[in-house]
Amino acid sequence: MRVPELIMKKRDGGELTEAELKYLIDGMVSGEVPDYQMSALCMAIYFRGMCARETAAMTQAMTVSGSVVNLSAISGIKVDKHSTGGVGDTTTLVLAPMVAAAGGVVAKMSGRGLGHTGGTLDKLESIPGFRVGLSESEFISQVNRIGLAVVGQTGDIAPADKKLYALRDVTATVESIPLIAASIMSKKLATGADAIVLDVKTGSGAFMQKLEDAQKLAELMVEIGTLAGRRMAALITDMSQPLGMAIGNSLEVIEAIETLQGKVGGRLLEVCLELGARMLILSGLAESTEEGKALLSDALSSGRALDKLTQMIEAQGGDSACTRDPWILPVARCTAEIRAEQGGYVQRVDALTLGRAAMAMGAGRSRKEDDVDLACGIVVAKSIGDAVKPGEPLAKLYASSERLMREGLDTAGQAFAVGAAPVAPPTLIY
Amino acid sequence: MRVPELIMKKRDGGELTEAELKYLIDGMVSGEVPDYQMSALCMAIYFRGMCARETAAMTQAMTVSGSVVNLSAISGIKVDKHSTGGVGDTTTLVLAPMVAAAGGVVAKMSGRGLGHTGGTLDKLESIPGFRVGLSESEFISQVNRIGLAVVGQTGDIAPADKKLYALRDVTATVESIPLIAASIMSKKLATGADAIVLDVKTGSGAFMQKLEDAQKLAELMVEIGTLAGRRMAALITDMSQPLGMAIGNSLEVIEAIETLQGKVGGRLLEVCLELGARMLILSGLAESTEEGKALLSDALSSGRALDKLTQMIEAQGGDSACTRDPWILPVARCTAEIRAEQGGYVQRVDALTLGRAAMAMGAGRSRKEDDVDLACGIVVAKSIGDAVKPGEPLAKLYASSERLMREGLDTAGQAFAVGAAPVAPPTLIY
Repeated sequence: MRVPELIMKKRDGGELTEAELKYLIDGMVSGEVPDYQMSALCMAIYFRGMCARETAAMTQAMTVSGSVVNLSAISGIKVDKHSTGGVGDTTTLVLAPMVAAAGGVVAKMSGRGLGHTGGTLDKLESIPGFRVGLSESEFISQVNRIGLAVVGQTGDIAPADKKLYALRDVTATVESIPLIAASIMSKKLATGADAIVLDVKTGSGAFMQKLEDAQKLAELMVEIGTLAGRRMAALITDMSQPLGMAIGNSLEVIEAIETLQGKVGGRLLEVCLELGARMLILSGLAESTEEGKALLSDALSSGRALDKLTQMIEAQGGDSACTRDPWILPVARCTAEIRAEQGGYVQRVDALTLGRAAMAMGAGRSRKEDDVDLACGIVVAKSIGDAVKPGEPLAKLYASSERLMREGLDTAGQAFAVGAAPVAPPTLIY
Repeated sequence: MRVPELIMKKRDGGELTEAELKYLIDGMVSGEVPDYQMSALCMAIYFRGMCARETAAMTQAMTVSGSVVNLSAISGIKVDKHSTGGVGDTTTLVLAPMVAAAGGVVAKMSGRGLGHTGGTLDKLESIPGFRVGLSESEFISQVNRIGLAVVGQTGDIAPADKKLYALRDVTATVESIPLIAASIMSKKLATGADAIVLDVKTGSGAFMQKLEDAQKLAELMVEIGTLAGRRMAALITDMSQPLGMAIGNSLEVIEAIETLQGKVGGRLLEVCLELGARMLILSGLAESTEEGKALLSDALSSGRALDKLTQMIEAQGGDSACTRDPWILPVARCTAEIRAEQGGYVQRVDALTLGRAAMAMGAGRSRKEDDVDLACGIVVAKSIGDAVKPGEPLAKLYASSERLMREGLDTAGQAFAVGAAPVAPPTLIY
């Protein structure tokens, strides 16, 4: 095959075959297809798109470019959830124990945070002693024993995706729905779950800022997964304001524990119940969303969901005392509040701005190599539509130094708007 | 400047500034901007285009990336002609002596053939002893003495264009009108002419197969040249059938000499008179196309144009005996004819197919490093619209071996179509 002809075919709106896409991806990994051809191809894909068949073929080639996790030693239907990344999005830590407590088999590989979006592994590492780096056999045996494990990737998952993403990042070709779908799904398919529920975020704090794009991405990923023989479901949820009230690693774990303790509800719990119900349906444990939600609510109110989290923390070497008293987790010592200058209704709690503020305080990474401060962050006190009195707190910030606090306050202050007119909260689940 | 942001700006339909384009081109030459970013940028330009201002800025950055020839030591208005490349297109060898004989100052740098299109330097080298590699001072002194020189590029002309073209060639980004315009004009502006007449070809044998694209390219190049302070004119001419009757290096020199001898006329001479008249106008030697053509016809009929070619061949070390008897030039020994199977009218004499047939016989290069056979080629006997009897010759082929002859015949045979219906010849000059 001649690579310039394949690029030309895509440039002119043609469809690449499975063999052509496999040749390109394999060639990129082996070095036979140089980066300058792959970047031109990605730009042509940016403009021309790829159909579901092409995207599935590219995904498949990327999936098998590295190790593919074999979870067949775990009995039952292994169910996974993937969120496209957001701000204050602690769903995994609430959802995974709830689903496991309701009988689901949750063998989950998670990632780290990048940019203004958080990552589950960083959050879990704020629990003293918690190990995310289990071996494949430790991972499998833990899931067989307690039905739940959340770990980092084992082995060399989808190296083609790593290489292609690094190239897209420096060639303005990240923002392509089929390329995003192939990137996410190649990693998901390589990590071995039988059933996958997707939580595609839309709004200012999400990758897909437009609802229409989020819908396209969700549909494409469901189709890719189905073509690869997986049970798939997807929800599109709002990320115009943070999902939970906490942003920052230990603060989000605290919120997750308080949710599992039954102390707080709100948007985070609502989304977890919706996603969890679909995970139970795909696992064959519920017939309807209502039945699924009822099973999860029972796991929550009975304390079994919190017990499941305690078991997982203990199994992975962490100090589970935090599930009784979450505020023993490390929290940064400098605090400050943002207060409403005037009374009225909260018009705006911008997720992207708050994510950036938390990153400025050290909670996130601007580059993959960066360290994160697990103890800092923001707890939001008000949501869009809430009534607020003059001087009432809108958010509390936690930083490890006065300098970082000033940086956080400078940015976070711009996230809020209060006005006289009542406003309706944004739709949470589309 | 951050290169991914510049690529994104173009990708999203923005206009790059002069400083941004200079940064990109300089960075490409120095190696600071890697190929994978340039190829993604070229693909974004393919889809989004560039306005005249952007194209002129990119052209300027490429022009000054290497040596810029200084022709100020030559008195008078130095006039150049550039053709976008075609089949059987010997205009330079007819035109340059005619314009010089009519008082024009022709200091021309030409190129070599690539693909199915011929190059003037290769054609000139079929004259025994002819040197195309003059030094800059030899070049200047010859033009001052006889008003005419046709040479290869001196110095390192537009290295940015060489590098970018090589990259475009392997990333399916050649076919972009602004990138083609910048490529051609960067070399023309670096070779120092005061006035440039462009001959943009359209039709199957041309780069620009569609008239509309040829018009856009011509307009853009005129605008770039004008912005750079040059006197510019452009014609769009037909390349659906070969311009002259000969295709192949020595065969085209023979046709040029026979034209200057007044023995043959036809399309080649007609295009040369039109282009030459514009060269004389830009040189201030004629006020109208009619006056220009009259001056050129006089140079031709008086024998002064042929004398000028003789002088140039002698000045550049060649054996000028060929200007009296052109058939002493090397011509391949195996010959064969393609004859009409039926009578009627010639419907098609496809330039691209004939160019490929000549290339198959060794007259052209598929890669820059290839050698060419100067003595082989095709002489076409009929043009579109001509009446033809059964068995009458359509073309004569010259090859250096029976094997090459068979390859030539296989391809060339497909170039012709004869049918019962009379057809009008295609428009020659748009």
